[in-house]
Amino acid sequence: MTDVRWDGEREGRTGIPEVVFGPGKTIAHLRAIFSEGTGLRMASRLSDDQMNALSDLAVIDPEARMAVRGARPVSGAARVAVLTAGTADIPVAREAITTLNAMGIPTINCFDVGIAGIHRLHGVMPEIQPAAVCIVVAGMDGALPAVVAGLVSAPVIGVPTSIGTGVAQGGMTALNTMLASCSPGLAVVNIDNGFGAACMAIKIIAVAAKPQP
Amino acid sequence: MTDVRWDGEREGRTGIPEVVFGPGKTIAHLRAIFSEGTGLRMASRLSDDQMNALSDLAVIDPEARMAVRGARPVSGAARVAVLTAGTADIPVAREAITTLNAMGIPTINCFDVGIAGIHRLHGVMPEIQPAAVCIVVAGMDGALPAVVAGLVSAPVIGVPTSIGTGVAQGGMTALNTMLASCSPGLAVVNIDNGFGAACMAIKIIAVAAKPQP
Amino acid sequence: MTDVRWDGEREGRTGIPEVVFGPGKTIAHLRAIFSEGTGLRMASRLSDDQMNALSDLAVIDPEARMAVRGARPVSGAARVAVLTAGTADIPVAREAITTLNAMGIPTINCFDVGIAGIHRLHGVMPEIQPAAVCIVVAGMDGALPAVVAGLVSAPVIGVPTSIGTGVAQGGMTALNTMLASCSPGLAVVNIDNGFGAACMAIKIIAVAAKPQP
Amino acid sequence: MTDVRWDGEREGRTGIPEVVFGPGKTIAHLRAIFSEGTGLRMASRLSDDQMNALSDLAVIDPEARMAVRGARPVSGAARVAVLTAGTADIPVAREAITTLNAMGIPTINCFDVGIAGIHRLHGVMPEIQPAAVCIVVAGMDGALPAVVAGLVSAPVIGVPTSIGTGVAQGGMTALNTMLASCSPGLAVVNIDNGFGAACMAIKIIAVAAKPQP
Amino acid sequence: MTDVRWDGEREGRTGIPEVVFGPGKTIAHLRAIFSEGTGLRMASRLSDDQMNALSDLAVIDPEARMAVRGARPVSGAARVAVLTAGTADIPVAREAITTLNAMGIPTINCFDVGIAGIHRLHGVMPEIQPAAVCIVVAGMDGALPAVVAGLVSAPVIGVPTSIGTGVAQGGMTALNTMLASCSPGLAVVNIDNGFGAACMAIKIIAVAAKPQP
Amino acid sequence: MTDVRWDGEREGRTGIPEVVFGPGKTIAHLRAIFSEGTGLRMASRLSDDQMNALSDLAVIDPEARMAVRGARPVSGAARVAVLTAGTADIPVAREAITTLNAMGIPTINCFDVGIAGIHRLHGVMPEIQPAAVCIVVAGMDGALPAVVAGLVSAPVIGVPTSIGTGVAQGGMTALNTMLASCSPGLAVVNIDNGFGAACMAIKIIAVAAKPQP
Amino acid sequence: MTDVRWDGEREGRTGIPEVVFGPGKTIAHLRAIFSEGTGLRMASRLSDDQMNALSDLAVIDPEARMAVRGARPVSGAARVAVLTAGTADIPVAREAITTLNAMGIPTINCFDVGIAGIHRLHGVMPEIQPAAVCIVVAGMDGALPAVVAGLVSAPVIGVPTSIGTGVAQGGMTALNTMLASCSPGLAVVNIDNGFGAACMAIKIIAVAAKPQP
Amino acid sequence: MTDVRWDGEREGRTGIPEVVFGPGKTIAHLRAIFSEGTGLRMASRLSDDQMNALSDLAVIDPEARMAVRGARPVSGAARVAVLTAGTADIPVAREAITTLNAMGIPTINCFDVGIAGIHRLHGVMPEIQPAAVCIVVAGMDGALPAVVAGLVSAPVIGVPTSIGTGVAQGGMTALNTMLASCSPGLAVVNIDNGFGAACMAIKIIAVAAKPQP
Repeated sequence: MTDVRWDGEREGRTGIPEVVFGPGKTIAHLRAIFSEGTGLRMASRLSDDQMNALSDLAVIDPEARMAVRGARPVSGAARVAVLTAGTADIPVAREAITTLNAMGIPTINCFDVGIAGIHRLHGVMPEIQPAAVCIVVAGMDGALPAVVAGLVSAPVIGVPTSIGTGVAQGGMTALNTMLASCSPGLAVVNIDNGFGAACMAIKIIAVAAKPQP
Repeated sequence: MTDVRWDGEREGRTGIPEVVFGPGKTIAHLRAIFSEGTGLRMASRLSDDQMNALSDLAVIDPEARMAVRGARPVSGAARVAVLTAGTADIPVAREAITTLNAMGIPTINCFDVGIAGIHRLHGVMPEIQPAAVCIVVAGMDGALPAVVAGLVSAPVIGVPTSIGTGVAQGGMTALNTMLASCSPGLAVVNIDNGFGAACMAIKIIAVAAKPQP
Repeated sequence: MTDVRWDGEREGRTGIPEVVFGPGKTIAHLRAIFSEGTGLRMASRLSDDQMNALSDLAVIDPEARMAVRGARPVSGAARVAVLTAGTADIPVAREAITTLNAMGIPTINCFDVGIAGIHRLHGVMPEIQPAAVCIVVAGMDGALPAVVAGLVSAPVIGVPTSIGTGVAQGGMTALNTMLASCSPGLAVVNIDNGFGAACMAIKIIAVAAKPQP
Repeated sequence: MTDVRWDGEREGRTGIPEVVFGPGKTIAHLRAIFSEGTGLRMASRLSDDQMNALSDLAVIDPEARMAVRGARPVSGAARVAVLTAGTADIPVAREAITTLNAMGIPTINCFDVGIAGIHRLHGVMPEIQPAAVCIVVAGMDGALPAVVAGLVSAPVIGVPTSIGTGVAQGGMTALNTMLASCSPGLAVVNIDNGFGAACMAIKIIAVAAKPQP
Repeated sequence: MTDVRWDGEREGRTGIPEVVFGPGKTIAHLRAIFSEGTGLRMASRLSDDQMNALSDLAVIDPEARMAVRGARPVSGAARVAVLTAGTADIPVAREAITTLNAMGIPTINCFDVGIAGIHRLHGVMPEIQPAAVCIVVAGMDGALPAVVAGLVSAPVIGVPTSIGTGVAQGGMTALNTMLASCSPGLAVVNIDNGFGAACMAIKIIAVAAKPQP
Repeated sequence: MTDVRWDGEREGRTGIPEVVFGPGKTIAHLRAIFSEGTGLRMASRLSDDQMNALSDLAVIDPEARMAVRGARPVSGAARVAVLTAGTADIPVAREAITTLNAMGIPTINCFDVGIAGIHRLHGVMPEIQPAAVCIVVAGMDGALPAVVAGLVSAPVIGVPTSIGTGVAQGGMTALNTMLASCSPGLAVVNIDNGFGAACMAIKIIAVAAKPQP
Repeated sequence: MTDVRWDGEREGRTGIPEVVFGPGKTIAHLRAIFSEGTGLRMASRLSDDQMNALSDLAVIDPEARMAVRGARPVSGAARVAVLTAGTADIPVAREAITTLNAMGIPTINCFDVGIAGIHRLHGVMPEIQPAAVCIVVAGMDGALPAVVAGLVSAPVIGVPTSIGTGVAQGGMTALNTMLASCSPGLAVVNIDNGFGAACMAIKIIAVAAKPQP
Repeated sequence: MTDVRWDGEREGRTGIPEVVFGPGKTIAHLRAIFSEGTGLRMASRLSDDQMNALSDLAVIDPEARMAVRGARPVSGAARVAVLTAGTADIPVAREAITTLNAMGIPTINCFDVGIAGIHRLHGVMPEIQPAAVCIVVAGMDGALPAVVAGLVSAPVIGVPTSIGTGVAQGGMTALNTMLASCSPGLAVVNIDNGFGAACMAIKIIAVAAKPQP
């Protein structure tokens, strides 16, 4: 670990602690990170082997592919709605939900409400309307975030996923659809980046909590 | 005109007459085409100069940028609904409408019903439901055809337009969105190709009219 | 299955029942879907394991990679011609054929009639001419649908496939070829999307069957 | 204007009023929009001719290329910092600033602080730190938003611009740089979309103002 | 002209003389080139002004946008067939024809025989069959060269053109179609490169004329 | 094999017999093709299993990944030079060589003469100069065919390969380099398509052998 | 100019003074920059109007499209060779040369030595060999820098240009060719970025002049 | 090895010896190369099997995936700083470091100093400032080289890596970011090409050592 510079001040500067990105990390390296210090520690995009190796040191969320140690208590009135267009988008949504919950932020989860059957979205709108922020996860055509952004006053964070075949191009089409939309109050993170969407939501929730100068 | 081989048999083979594509054609060439023979003759994508030069030989539709001679009477129970997501998509829709009307097929026109305010689409659904075919024209995110295809039993022809900036990429994003959708019964034509969408609709209408063997 | 919202009304709205997309679905989930309810149920893009696991609950079509329960009787005068350019395109064609047949629509199948030996296409034209709709499946250069669309009065649905190497780019070249064509009455679905082409054909056939208002 | 469906309820639903996108609109159409009703009305991406034609009906901001009627008083503790990497990015920043100010939100403007001379950014950090939201506008390499997102606790909205030559590819490189960053709490809008960034900021500011349920 | 190194030995080495590419050349520079020396001299891609300025020094072919001085007599049994798919492809074909004729090689010209009406191609096949080489020029879907290559024993040189809109992408789709084809004996040159196709044909014809060692 | 239409007339029409493309073919199918009829039969792109399964019916060339039955005697004065830029390009070159030799055409093989050490090319030029056709195989930067085309009077067929990393993009960069060159008398086939290059060469050699009308 | 933060310390930090990028700058702004202070001042990519407006304040180089005030005396043993593949690449080369000369560094200029006639390069090698650094400017296939890098011990900076048509793609093909090369000691700057190449050369020359610690 | 032309003169011409690129080489071939001759011999991009097979003939660096025989003594005042943005970029940095050290050039290694926590870079600047050349390795957003180039007088060689997901596109985004930067004195090599960066650095260091004519 001599080559690594741990950014321990990150939460102080940005409100978000450094999180370990799993791919390429050795088991020994991961175990060392979860053994040292105290308090919240998270790792994402873990392989089956990595999750198994951390199961005595952290809570494992296999669908989100994350390990969490020292999760903070979930509380507060400001909730984040997390929607998915299809069932295949759920793992990306889970990465966002697990991150938010570990940081103590409650979520409202509504899955499989894509636009091919728009009545499904209308059915869940009453649940979603109270949310302070909406994270909308969609692959294939990626059209759901734009529809949601036209219906709510909350800021909407679009998360394109790599779900889909042919012209879906590993999520590029869903990404471009979200960016090209003219719905108001929609911004976007990288493909499959549920963690990044959660970080943006955490910062937004913190704006509400911070007394303005 | 010695280099040109007019495909006069095309309507006999395919049900669609050959139509003149304006760009690059000289005024003399265009006037010759509209002066010879009788019956239906159409030209598309005309410049202002080309439209002016044909105004004594054909009916000019400046929004569609088309010239039509010998339009057939509009009649028949099978109608084509033509929708647009925004107002900037209307010229492409007009190319489809003018072609269909010239071939004698009635249309139902509903413009500016894009997904940023989905209630506008729900408002026009009663008008659209009776249509035999839907042509849905959309630029930017290109999401409207997929929403419509999930709501109607008619076949839907998506027409991406080159409207939009940045990642809209001259219509490529709208095109890919339409192709990547999982809504049932949606097929797509080239960017801005209102004429091609009309041709597909004409062939579909003809299936209904043709006694099956 | 608590995260899933089954769209049971889809056939009522669109004429096409919801179909299960196999990738990412667990065996348990798939078996539950095929065990509940009655009537037509279909799943596509199944792995070998998924097909084996459903073999007691549904008819398995290994070339189409589909499972079908409760197929409707094939009948009616309106037939769909399904052509392929090469032999490698046949699995995509089979996905379309199996879907159509399960919905009760008869097909005319003509494979390996690509343009490198155009006489093969001319040889099968008499079989194809009576079809109400043509589905034309082609990879590599993707040129066959445009040739067919210039020869028939039926609407043509082009299906690009991911067959080919180098510049074939996983089907993008075949897709673009079909969209860029000026042949009349040709629309296109996503790469390898035999199911989507069948859905479009089903909606077109339904136009003919529906009494116009 | 018969083809247009004005979405007058948009501000009630989303907190953001409908704004007129200038390109393709006729002078007559624009004047009609700014003559009817009362209260806030905005148009963006206006040509010189369009701006001149509206100068008696609205306040014109030539650098932002916007017209504003009935701007709300700027007030409130929650401010938005708007940064640019270079001077060529300023017009896009102005579109965001003019929109925010018209909606009554105060801004902190810091231009020309790109990473080629990183000391310039450090110099302005004390001004930026109190902001509730940061909008960071950058073309060419698009690296500034990621640096800022690592330094502040406010949510950061990245706006790529079409500034740059060669591989800058009309803003695609700046866009991808922002999306590929691992800095926490950064989301992105379309290329040159200062207005879209302002909308996202307005919704975020509104979260703070709304009493949570 | 001090910065220019004229490759006067090129015809000796390769059989093809150096030809002047017009864009960016001054009138003075072009006139100097056509004033010095004797024998064959060619320039291509000339603007209207450049063509006018050379009209006293060379024969101008305005459709090919070329100037030729000292054309060699057209003779010999080996002819090159030059086909186009549409009329808009003719200028590119003319660049090939003018180059071939200037080098003394006779051509067989057949225009507007694209695949949307395949009977037109069959009609001209008897003219084409005797050719030693076929140059086939096509934009949009670019499918014609592959059909021709499956019908003739002559080598086929495909020339994609920038004709077409939307997914035609300035000729990239036609280019990829030609390269992805499995028709035997087809090779391709750059988009709109009629001159390059002529060079390849000239070298092929020279093989036949050269006594083998 | 009922779905397959063998194009037995192909050699009569084009001078090139139909060749079996291995991927996706079953062992049984391949053995059937090599068991029936007499005379030349070739298959390409074979897997290890496919090559093993055909070893009693055909001559196997493992580097070219081809099987050949009934190769014709190599003879004639017209030879084809086959060059590669690197050693990793040799398998693609072998596909061309094996095809040419099977058709009875002699080859001159010069490998590993890429431009990073241009003196290696100059060293082999005396061997190459007598060739009737040059096939030049190159990956990575793909620059070798353009250098060769500037040095020989023979037509040059460029074959890009998928060798290289990063921006080599699976051969797209080598392909574009070859097409963008201004060297005279160079045409190109698809990435890794040694067989296609051989077909073009066979047709060119046949021009020389055919008495002109 | 209140929005601009002039980086006056840049030369102290990096050895390269800040240079004005012309596009988008007003005449007034440019004249102000060239009127204030003393010493070296440069502007690049100037329009005709901008060059005319600065002609009394600076030396104008119309081919390089630059203005220079206070050029330093050209001296020193370390020279930079600047080569171009074609004549159309010369303006980009001139941008590099003018920048280098203004900074006092002598250059060796060799134009039009592209690989289509490789003997031209061999002819100028004796002039180039003494150079401390080589800048090689090439559009179209972009192959020249790789050939040069295999022949010299000096570091080579490749500058792709936007010269070329079709697949040249505004310089992307030349750029990729240079990056994909395996020639040793070649690095690359952005398309048409003669200034950037000069900066890299200036820093390299400074390494030689700096006493190592 | 008969097909291989070893470029033994390369170091004499360019200062860089030929290095074996591992992929596709057989164990026998590699062992032969390391068994013959004397002096420095290097191989890169080796598989585990290839590294194991050479362990008795060369020093193996498993992180760099290289084998080195006859490394030269590390000495001299001119050092190369090698930085990485993240820990996942270290293997590419190691390829550069191992190559430089084998050639006798000392390095200064600073890893994990990416821009998400810019204070980490400022912390290591005193170590980096004395370097004669900087190699900066970065994936994802690829922004680090531009920040460094604005801080040092040494020439900077950017090495994009294939680290990152979604829009990182296998390193293309990092590559474009580096090329699009306006920081002075930054040039770039291919994605993951640590070896290529080392070669450029070696040539630069040699400029300083060479007495100028």
